[in-house]
Amino acid sequence: MSTYPINDRNRVIRGPKRANYDQAVIHAIIDEALVCHLACGDEQASYIQPTLHWRVGETLYVHGSAKNGLFQRLINGAEGSIAITLLDGIVFARSAFHHSVNYRSVILYGKARLVTDEAEKCASLDALMEKFHSGRSKEARPANATELKATSVLAFTLSNIAAKIRTGGPVDDPEDMQLPVWAGVQPIHLQLGEIIYE
Amino acid sequence: MSTYPINDRNRVIRGPKRANYDQAVIHAIIDEALVCHLACGDEQASYIQPTLHWRVGETLYVHGSAKNGLFQRLINGAEGSIAITLLDGIVFARSAFHHSVNYRSVILYGKARLVTDEAEKCASLDALMEKFHSGRSKEARPANATELKATSVLAFTLSNIAAKIRTGGPVDDPEDMQLPVWAGVQPIHLQLGEIIYE
Repeated sequence: MSTYPINDRNRVIRGPKRANYDQAVIHAIIDEALVCHLACGDEQASYIQPTLHWRVGETLYVHGSAKNGLFQRLINGAEGSIAITLLDGIVFARSAFHHSVNYRSVILYGKARLVTDEAEKCASLDALMEKFHSGRSKEARPANATELKATSVLAFTLSNIAAKIRTGGPVDDPEDMQLPVWAGVQPIHLQLGEIIYE
Repeated sequence: MSTYPINDRNRVIRGPKRANYDQAVIHAIIDEALVCHLACGDEQASYIQPTLHWRVGETLYVHGSAKNGLFQRLINGAEGSIAITLLDGIVFARSAFHHSVNYRSVILYGKARLVTDEAEKCASLDALMEKFHSGRSKEARPANATELKATSVLAFTLSNIAAKIRTGGPVDDPEDMQLPVWAGVQPIHLQLGEIIYE
């Protein structure tokens, strides 16, 4: 598979020229981002929370307290939606309307699978450690039985998924190009500093 | 008002020691963050998207295409949830379990109000421009009637709102402190670069 199938659920409707269903592109956005936002809802209420995520093959994992209310709703069968967003720049156009941002985002819709197999659970949590610091899963004290029990890992299959990407400078209307208004792009970069050891 | 009222909807249940309902703290997180995540759902499906947000007093605004599907659901009365997340550091503990991140996040629940008053709509869009670049609303060509009509602005009142904040180093179990495992914090910083003019 090199592109994800497009269906009524994951098709990008607004701004379809910015849509991208390429597997490698979507994997790269998921892997670069440190945090995702996870949501579900019902007729009465909407729920959302930020959480760390990581990927192993075609599975996106999130983890949290076994008592987490949003997790419980997903485990009980509510459809989840996940957004992963990388902001790359602020786009200043000559008109207010054409101001924009450069970004790479992924949206995934689907039901969660609670990871109950202990081998998969431990391997997935090791993969989380490795995402944040290569080699860390071999250094830190592994989780004991109590700690593992207190942690829920949810798995989402990478399907009903799409990326949306904007790059480049402002796109002004032709009649605005001669206005005495500056235009350009202010880059945004997430910087990881040096580790402060204690 | 210096703190937001706490009720069953906005009370932080998991990790209550990290909860913060202080108005100034919540305002500062909202104002520093460039992007929020907006969600709603029903019995069948969940919807989420990243979008820019900005604040005027006790109102949080988002804007988007008037045809945006999630916006339509909110305008039609679905409860929305909004998450605003600033990631400040990766926390490396001596045990896998106590690894964490430092962050400042805000969650808001509520129904959207479609901004129909033209004066409020124009003033709010000016405030968005000012958030991204001071003085910009006086420089760029203002939106014309067609552009204004194509843009929907939604307003959420800052209520049913809470912040959650983690700061500082790892909190290890006492029995892990003597393990030969390094611990510390890797700072994360969102860097705005110099504008590249075109």
